Amino acid sequence: MMHTQKMLREDALKGKVIVVTGGGSGLGKAMTKYFLELGAKVAISSRNLDKLKNTAQELEQDTGGTCLPLQCDVRHYDQVEAMHKQVIDTLGKVDVLLNNAAGNFISPTERLSANAFDVIIDIVLKGTKNCTLAFGKHWIDTKYTNTTVLNIVTTYAWTGSGYVVPSAAAKAGVLAMTRSLAVEWAKYGMRFNAIAPGPFPTEGAWDRLMPGNLKDKFDMAKKVPLNRVGEHQELANLAAYLVSDFSAYVNGEVVTIDGGEWLKGAGEFNLLEAIPEELWDQLEAMIRAKKNK
Amino acid sequence: MMHTQKMLREDALKGKVIVVTGGGSGLGKAMTKYFLELGAKVAISSRNLDKLKNTAQELEQDTGGTCLPLQCDVRHYDQVEAMHKQVIDTLGKVDVLLNNAAGNFISPTERLSANAFDVIIDIVLKGTKNCTLAFGKHWIDTKYTNTTVLNIVTTYAWTGSGYVVPSAAAKAGVLAMTRSLAVEWAKYGMRFNAIAPGPFPTEGAWDRLMPGNLKDKFDMAKKVPLNRVGEHQELANLAAYLVSDFSAYVNGEVVTIDGGEWLKGAGEFNLLEAIPEELWDQLEAMIRAKKNK
Amino acid sequence: MMHTQKMLREDALKGKVIVVTGGGSGLGKAMTKYFLELGAKVAISSRNLDKLKNTAQELEQDTGGTCLPLQCDVRHYDQVEAMHKQVIDTLGKVDVLLNNAAGNFISPTERLSANAFDVIIDIVLKGTKNCTLAFGKHWIDTKYTNTTVLNIVTTYAWTGSGYVVPSAAAKAGVLAMTRSLAVEWAKYGMRFNAIAPGPFPTEGAWDRLMPGNLKDKFDMAKKVPLNRVGEHQELANLAAYLVSDFSAYVNGEVVTIDGGEWLKGAGEFNLLEAIPEELWDQLEAMIRAKKNK
Amino acid sequence: MMHTQKMLREDALKGKVIVVTGGGSGLGKAMTKYFLELGAKVAISSRNLDKLKNTAQELEQDTGGTCLPLQCDVRHYDQVEAMHKQVIDTLGKVDVLLNNAAGNFISPTERLSANAFDVIIDIVLKGTKNCTLAFGKHWIDTKYTNTTVLNIVTTYAWTGSGYVVPSAAAKAGVLAMTRSLAVEWAKYGMRFNAIAPGPFPTEGAWDRLMPGNLKDKFDMAKKVPLNRVGEHQELANLAAYLVSDFSAYVNGEVVTIDGGEWLKGAGEFNLLEAIPEELWDQLEAMIRAKKNK
Repeated sequence: MMHTQKMLREDALKGKVIVVTGGGSGLGKAMTKYFLELGAKVAISSRNLDKLKNTAQELEQDTGGTCLPLQCDVRHYDQVEAMHKQVIDTLGKVDVLLNNAAGNFISPTERLSANAFDVIIDIVLKGTKNCTLAFGKHWIDTKYTNTTVLNIVTTYAWTGSGYVVPSAAAKAGVLAMTRSLAVEWAKYGMRFNAIAPGPFPTEGAWDRLMPGNLKDKFDMAKKVPLNRVGEHQELANLAAYLVSDFSAYVNGEVVTIDGGEWLKGAGEFNLLEAIPEELWDQLEAMIRAKKNK
Repeated sequence: MMHTQKMLREDALKGKVIVVTGGGSGLGKAMTKYFLELGAKVAISSRNLDKLKNTAQELEQDTGGTCLPLQCDVRHYDQVEAMHKQVIDTLGKVDVLLNNAAGNFISPTERLSANAFDVIIDIVLKGTKNCTLAFGKHWIDTKYTNTTVLNIVTTYAWTGSGYVVPSAAAKAGVLAMTRSLAVEWAKYGMRFNAIAPGPFPTEGAWDRLMPGNLKDKFDMAKKVPLNRVGEHQELANLAAYLVSDFSAYVNGEVVTIDGGEWLKGAGEFNLLEAIPEELWDQLEAMIRAKKNK
Repeated sequence: MMHTQKMLREDALKGKVIVVTGGGSGLGKAMTKYFLELGAKVAISSRNLDKLKNTAQELEQDTGGTCLPLQCDVRHYDQVEAMHKQVIDTLGKVDVLLNNAAGNFISPTERLSANAFDVIIDIVLKGTKNCTLAFGKHWIDTKYTNTTVLNIVTTYAWTGSGYVVPSAAAKAGVLAMTRSLAVEWAKYGMRFNAIAPGPFPTEGAWDRLMPGNLKDKFDMAKKVPLNRVGEHQELANLAAYLVSDFSAYVNGEVVTIDGGEWLKGAGEFNLLEAIPEELWDQLEAMIRAKKNK
Repeated sequence: MMHTQKMLREDALKGKVIVVTGGGSGLGKAMTKYFLELGAKVAISSRNLDKLKNTAQELEQDTGGTCLPLQCDVRHYDQVEAMHKQVIDTLGKVDVLLNNAAGNFISPTERLSANAFDVIIDIVLKGTKNCTLAFGKHWIDTKYTNTTVLNIVTTYAWTGSGYVVPSAAAKAGVLAMTRSLAVEWAKYGMRFNAIAPGPFPTEGAWDRLMPGNLKDKFDMAKKVPLNRVGEHQELANLAAYLVSDFSAYVNGEVVTIDGGEWLKGAGEFNLLEAIPEELWDQLEAMIRAKKNK
């Protein structure tokens, strides 16, 4: 089996209704497609309704599934509530919320205004909170159980990172919310988990972050022990597992899928990879000589 | 789909040869069985050959697969090398090493001798190291790639825990080895990951840890937000994903499958779950009254 | 020496100007007092100017130092800039920013409105961001170096916690900001660190969180391995170390001072503390008997 | 105050007896010296008694304190017990154990024999365990309280690292032991903490790791946001704080003192530091242009 193949048994998500925020493009679209293939009905939301409609139509044609496009700016709680109501009205229920909508500025922090910083916190942290709160309260009120929330975060949610500080702060907040509600709301039949993806290039996101010639200069693949970026189906496989009932005992967990990228940078002596074999031979000889003195 | 069902598509592990240390009973046996069902050939090892033979025979009958029982005390490097040679001689290759063999003393640390402590370090940490080193060197020497090592650890590998301190120290070492080699040996086509299971009762292990009436008094399910212990198939599903090619971009990762157990204890205010609804009503009223003063 | 004594050599902070947000009461006041005793000039800010003035007057009398009270709602960037200007105008410079201002609702999350959640994010995360951005930009613009930012977070910044979810999300964001800017802004001569205090009761904060009889029922000291809550001077000692030049090589770090509280809950078998000595004797006998079978 | 000055008030450790394993050279010697200056009596141990005696004599002359040299290979429990007895016989008691003895091979892991790997685990993990167990049991037996154990680990205890894998595994084990016993043995009046130092060059250790021209090629200072390695007094200041009563509420904690080194490597976008100012200007212009399309 190749890692680009689809992993779950057929109909693994049959009967489930899934809402994917930011589902119109990029990784959100890739996950949505796979959920549809596995038998789920999926509502996708974003601010741009035209784009969403195109995506929904394309995915329905490709998969034969049901994909509902819904305009929603997750920063506004009333819009989130309205979006939730539309899903309920149209598809009858929600089983899974995938908080995937995000924003990011790649910039030295001193070049950001206080407002620019707030925009990212509002989209990523407050947006995730708005969806989680609206959907969660409804699940509690209606005593609807066996539900799950999956949040897309990053490895710099726990390591931090320069040059994406608003995103780091916001994603860290999302991760803490994941772990908090995994415990607190378990009694209402909800599970909460997160995925921290490494470099998964998308035209939508990556291009915006790394325009032009910089894309080559700062080739993210080189930072990854596996020496490659991720394939969308790899992320979709993991996401499908985590929203499915097969992961029913995984709760409060963040699963990193980055080929080992963050660990390579973090480990103090990993830079010694640059030492060639011959030099290791020499080093060993030197050490041996020293010992024999 | 139920979480106790099998999640991967058919033949997901077809063509793979997997070695499971400590594969004769408990969780090792459960994972072995599922690997066989998914088309892998599996060699299982432990110190007790008779038990292994019974397990292998039972699993072959149940699954129609190939299961090879091999005696090996992982504390001794020469035995590990001999075991490895037997697998190669019989099954032609190894694709996956699952380091599952373990030992544990549940005891106040001051009641342990220095030797007793060493026994656990030797089985868990040195044993895992012995298998990893022997198998890894062979993969490097023969330039055999697309291999993976999966290590079974615990949540107290990073939190620590009283009353199982030798195991905590040893499992932490295994986790660090996982993260180290995930980076260093990626260039040889190996991946390394770990699973941290919460309470998955087995007659073999749990009974030994919690004999008699204590099993009820210290009911681990109550510590878990999901309010239940795990089912063996849930662990087998996760393990199958992590040894399969579907997880090819997951590297250096430890996936916790504990229903949220460790987070429930760790989060400072999670104990407030014990406050009943009526009291929250009162508290809100008090706070409101205070504000209006 | 007792832990309640003052640890740093005399005049350890002489010549430094320190800004403590939320410095009018509780732990902020305790840290401010010790900074003054060590020779620093301290500006304290909060929304309530009257209270601040009383505190400043009291601390100046007690210590003979200079304490400047400044009204500021950290949620508003323009107020933060104005506060910063006042410190510069009055005290000439700033060497240290201590982000201590915070808010918290202790409540089941489903009882919170989306707005209530936002209030905490705004005070804690955006407030810390506002101060950090305003002060940091000024340090960069004026090329003023050897500065440091200390952020007060919590252990549930990384574990999460139910019943304080807005605070958990916001404090996690602050921690990620700490780690991010510790790297990115090091080139401008700034250091960033954090403290995660466990239970340090204050009339201001603790009372509000745990009114009335609940204070006894949910006695936080029992959760702490050391079996006591913290003394304010203990926190002040650690904070003084981290804002002083003595910690010049500590950067990007969060130091937990909680007596081991979070680890006690997190470690899977720590609950076995409840087993009495006699039972351990019995257990050992049982295990020995089993082995001899 | 400069970071290279001594931070604690005079006589901060007066009356304490401290045992420092591996205290004859390098960082162990630096910490020992400062403990002596603060009024403690210190026993230092290592395998090489001649070197120890020289160090002890030198330190007694420099500080006017009491420094007791004791031969001990920490890998052997009986030697540890004998060493402990000598301290008790000579200095009457022990208040602090500083587990600093260590060993390391810097090497590609596939070049290590199983035995070489074991040597490091034996020195670092079993050695620390032997000392901790011998001293701890004695403290428990004699009901001697207000004691503390400080363990020297590394940042790769939790990140892992290639090329030092035996050390990574062993130090991770030590860290887990620290966290475990901080909880379990708190009831006996012991505290446990750890320090994770970044690059603190010593002739003893660093030279052995990085001989000849490699020292320049792989300049560790460049990996550190602060752009320098640490000074021994900086580590000594932190260690003195953690063994003193001033840190009485710090328990189970590992304090990193590495200038932010591990975070710089870990944070996904920290490599963008290499982008010059002009390019950021261009990037901003490009992004603005894109938006206006």
